[in-house]
Amino acid sequence: MNLPLKGIIPPMITPLTENGELDLIGLEKLIEHLISGGVHGIFILGTNGEGPSLTYALRKELIHNACKFVDHRVPVLVGITDTSFEGSIEIAQCSKEAEADAVVVAPPYYFPVSQSEMMEYLENLIPELPLPVMMYNMPSHTKLHLSLETVRKAKELGAIGIKDSSGDMAYFYSLIEEFKGSPEFSIITGTELFIPESIIHGGDGAVAGGANFFPRLYVDLYEASLANDKKAITELRNKVIKVYDTIYSVGKHTSRITKGTKTALAVMGICNDYMAQPLRKFKPNERRKIKEYIEEFEKIN
Amino acid sequence: MNLPLKGIIPPMITPLTENGELDLIGLEKLIEHLISGGVHGIFILGTNGEGPSLTYALRKELIHNACKFVDHRVPVLVGITDTSFEGSIEIAQCSKEAEADAVVVAPPYYFPVSQSEMMEYLENLIPELPLPVMMYNMPSHTKLHLSLETVRKAKELGAIGIKDSSGDMAYFYSLIEEFKGSPEFSIITGTELFIPESIIHGGDGAVAGGANFFPRLYVDLYEASLANDKKAITELRNKVIKVYDTIYSVGKHTSRITKGTKTALAVMGICNDYMAQPLRKFKPNERRKIKEYIEEFEKIN
Amino acid sequence: MNLPLKGIIPPMITPLTENGELDLIGLEKLIEHLISGGVHGIFILGTNGEGPSLTYALRKELIHNACKFVDHRVPVLVGITDTSFEGSIEIAQCSKEAEADAVVVAPPYYFPVSQSEMMEYLENLIPELPLPVMMYNMPSHTKLHLSLETVRKAKELGAIGIKDSSGDMAYFYSLIEEFKGSPEFSIITGTELFIPESIIHGGDGAVAGGANFFPRLYVDLYEASLANDKKAITELRNKVIKVYDTIYSVGKHTSRITKGTKTALAVMGICNDYMAQPLRKFKPNERRKIKEYIEEFEKIN
Amino acid sequence: MNLPLKGIIPPMITPLTENGELDLIGLEKLIEHLISGGVHGIFILGTNGEGPSLTYALRKELIHNACKFVDHRVPVLVGITDTSFEGSIEIAQCSKEAEADAVVVAPPYYFPVSQSEMMEYLENLIPELPLPVMMYNMPSHTKLHLSLETVRKAKELGAIGIKDSSGDMAYFYSLIEEFKGSPEFSIITGTELFIPESIIHGGDGAVAGGANFFPRLYVDLYEASLANDKKAITELRNKVIKVYDTIYSVGKHTSRITKGTKTALAVMGICNDYMAQPLRKFKPNERRKIKEYIEEFEKIN
Repeated sequence: MNLPLKGIIPPMITPLTENGELDLIGLEKLIEHLISGGVHGIFILGTNGEGPSLTYALRKELIHNACKFVDHRVPVLVGITDTSFEGSIEIAQCSKEAEADAVVVAPPYYFPVSQSEMMEYLENLIPELPLPVMMYNMPSHTKLHLSLETVRKAKELGAIGIKDSSGDMAYFYSLIEEFKGSPEFSIITGTELFIPESIIHGGDGAVAGGANFFPRLYVDLYEASLANDKKAITELRNKVIKVYDTIYSVGKHTSRITKGTKTALAVMGICNDYMAQPLRKFKPNERRKIKEYIEEFEKIN
Repeated sequence: MNLPLKGIIPPMITPLTENGELDLIGLEKLIEHLISGGVHGIFILGTNGEGPSLTYALRKELIHNACKFVDHRVPVLVGITDTSFEGSIEIAQCSKEAEADAVVVAPPYYFPVSQSEMMEYLENLIPELPLPVMMYNMPSHTKLHLSLETVRKAKELGAIGIKDSSGDMAYFYSLIEEFKGSPEFSIITGTELFIPESIIHGGDGAVAGGANFFPRLYVDLYEASLANDKKAITELRNKVIKVYDTIYSVGKHTSRITKGTKTALAVMGICNDYMAQPLRKFKPNERRKIKEYIEEFEKIN
Repeated sequence: MNLPLKGIIPPMITPLTENGELDLIGLEKLIEHLISGGVHGIFILGTNGEGPSLTYALRKELIHNACKFVDHRVPVLVGITDTSFEGSIEIAQCSKEAEADAVVVAPPYYFPVSQSEMMEYLENLIPELPLPVMMYNMPSHTKLHLSLETVRKAKELGAIGIKDSSGDMAYFYSLIEEFKGSPEFSIITGTELFIPESIIHGGDGAVAGGANFFPRLYVDLYEASLANDKKAITELRNKVIKVYDTIYSVGKHTSRITKGTKTALAVMGICNDYMAQPLRKFKPNERRKIKEYIEEFEKIN
Repeated sequence: MNLPLKGIIPPMITPLTENGELDLIGLEKLIEHLISGGVHGIFILGTNGEGPSLTYALRKELIHNACKFVDHRVPVLVGITDTSFEGSIEIAQCSKEAEADAVVVAPPYYFPVSQSEMMEYLENLIPELPLPVMMYNMPSHTKLHLSLETVRKAKELGAIGIKDSSGDMAYFYSLIEEFKGSPEFSIITGTELFIPESIIHGGDGAVAGGANFFPRLYVDLYEASLANDKKAITELRNKVIKVYDTIYSVGKHTSRITKGTKTALAVMGICNDYMAQPLRKFKPNERRKIKEYIEEFEKIN
């Protein structure tokens, strides 16, 4: 894997069957959809991937199958965050065996931990991991907003980058500033709307949820951003804005983003929209809206 | 198991060895310590039990051994809360096999869920559980403060009671008021300081962390409260106040309660004080303070 | 004043001199800047206006002078939110005397209040107010996210609309859905980035902070949105995105938006950038960045 | 005023008439009630005093009359916290004129401020204040939990102490540890339940809301704590526990403490129970409960 990690790395949703098993057919179709869309990597078992909601058996089955289907065409990153330290290592080892490329680590999310407790946790965890480590900042779900000091500590321990899903652009720019002397350390945004700015300011890529259903859109946007092609950026970002306004605005509660993403793939015929508990698939009227939105997008292409 | 569930039910800490395995000798000593202290039940794999930090294998080993050591002398309640729905059921089934008496359910704690999402979750979960269900309100860790409506829904689905660890006495009293027509539904407090008031107002018992090290103290306090013996209540509660002022006030961060509890047991020679990541055992100077405090307690008895 | 209130209504910053007095020359220049930029109304004493940081004397001086300078060319809305109920009424009465057009009400922000306490507060406050009332949803500063039920109650009591600064688009769309049968009730967004979507979905306008420095930009965007002119929307929104990426991304802490806005006006020569305590003007290097950004914007126009 | 400030300093409620004016007769009775109860100081215009809800005119009228009625028998501390910097100074100057003894400062509470912004705020504010300054830590209402570093900065700027209402005992003990070399710097608790421990650990006193209605109880508890008279401590604290269980447990929402305190004084015939908006007096059934509780207390004395 070349460093820094770069480009569009979708936080892949996990295709499930009605009875909660891995939807292998959907998984293969989804991975082909992503790779043929030009993505630069695939991040499995993150928040959109409902990682914490899945059994270890299912997580491992997913890791093995995803790596097999991807077959080294792009790097595979595996979310290993877990409330169990040993569980994190177990998933990391499985990732190594399956020949994944890196693991992704966020704070264990049951006990509220302080920055100093998180630093000690990383000191214990990172040396145990058999693959390169990306940090993952996701304060809304993990209760901790990683401080610059904690990210520095992770880097000292060998982390190869950070994905920031805090939505705070000033924080993202401060990460770029902080690590500008380390070009091999990836600074990746989770905020789709500002992919061009993130890239132009020196960020390395985006973990873009919308790239699940429209991978080419986000890849094109990334490349237009690299080329600083303002016309293309504009046209492509308009579609990202439309994603926010449509697919991400159906339903209530913070879970609507993940639900909308999976439903979009379902109406596109790629996989079905069963969710892992506690999330539940959209009701028919919400699903119908997503269907109409996808059809609108198809018309404009 | 007679309903309502009553009395002092310690949220048992999980004795661990230096390399993170179950400390079986410590476990047996701890259970004997609790039962000889007169507790009315034992709640394993809760917050103090570091349940979410333990592997499934270790959780199952604990369940089987705890049930074996307890040998039906008191009810065993098992915390099954997990971000994985299937994981919760798996632990519940293991609890059934081990002949535990009930399981304890809090919101899955990674995705923030709304009250309506929680109600739907319970509709799906409770029918799958092979043992009676206690609800567990722990908003600081699970991100959701169970509304009265959600607790009512749990009761309709068959829940046998609720343990409230919110620390909000007015909420606790509103639970008592809400369910006063259902005497078999247990209302259990997690606030040790107000055990007498909780019992006198109609509450059924307490999940008291301090009963790990001083079970007799809390049992005596419960019985004095039942008897409304003001003199005894006063004397006993003074010791609970001293617990707050000493063992619960060492260290920083919210994790200090669990750490202090385990350290107290260690200095008493019952089990050692290794913690599961991300919590770490107290540093020597903090441990020394706990040791002094325990010695002070021993002097006054 | 025609209902519903519509269009671009800048939350005007309050020009101050070095010694904390009202900068009357700056104020007049700013108001001419806004009106010549085509704004449809002016909202004074909101969050960007540092309303709560100003003395009553200064607030009243501002109200009188702003109304005098505006001279009924556009509606003037006055933020009256205050922790003192009588203070709110006093500012409302001053607004009436100065011939302002409406007042804006958010929850009093010291005591945390529940939705039911807020409804009772509105029942007591609204009948005492001599001008039409707009509601203001600003949970990050007031500690309360107004529920649909509370907004309905405000409407029953006579409120003429709501400005939503929560940043939650699904909530904003649920407001539009809720009040679609009442076309005279204004639904105004505080989220500049999604002005086109807000208008196209049936929203009535935007309280856009960036319209302080670039009023024409936001007015043009509003009109392009009304006309559903996709080409113009795109071009104009690109500039709004650039505002987020530049002026709104200088400095740390949530206060950077207000500071950046005032600094932008200062480097444009409209008013100076002194802030009311506890906010402080940007340090020279931050100010320099804002200056460079404004110059870039000027080049592209 | 002798330093450190010591003893029981009630956060006095503000007696109001039905039409929201200062209840002068009630005020005089309340102050006599407090002083004859032996309090060591009186803190007016804090949270219990509904300071932020009162007009400046009423606050000043209160300051002058309270100081007049107290007539230097005990120190008077005046809460000057305000979202307006000038407003804080204005109330401080009025306090000086009225011959109050000190002012009390918490973070201005509308704009969320960082620790560094708070330190700069204190650097600007404290030199402008004509009276000694006590800091006030009240994170639930002001959005900022004062760090040890911020408190040190306040002390360097001349602050004479801190009142901590965070409810976090470990934080309180860390304050004592931090400032043990400065015996003239007061460390005052706002947590009534742990007054004995606070004093025994080296704290200087308590801003105890319950001392509004039962001043002698809290003064006796303070003195018993100073004397380390365990029997007296026990007996007196039992009554404080009963206050929590009764007067502080009526009603819902966090405002119930202030409402219960004022209602207790009303049923004791000292002043009436009108509140400043947004708080409203208890409904008749809640008032009846408070009345019964006060009667129970009277019986046990």
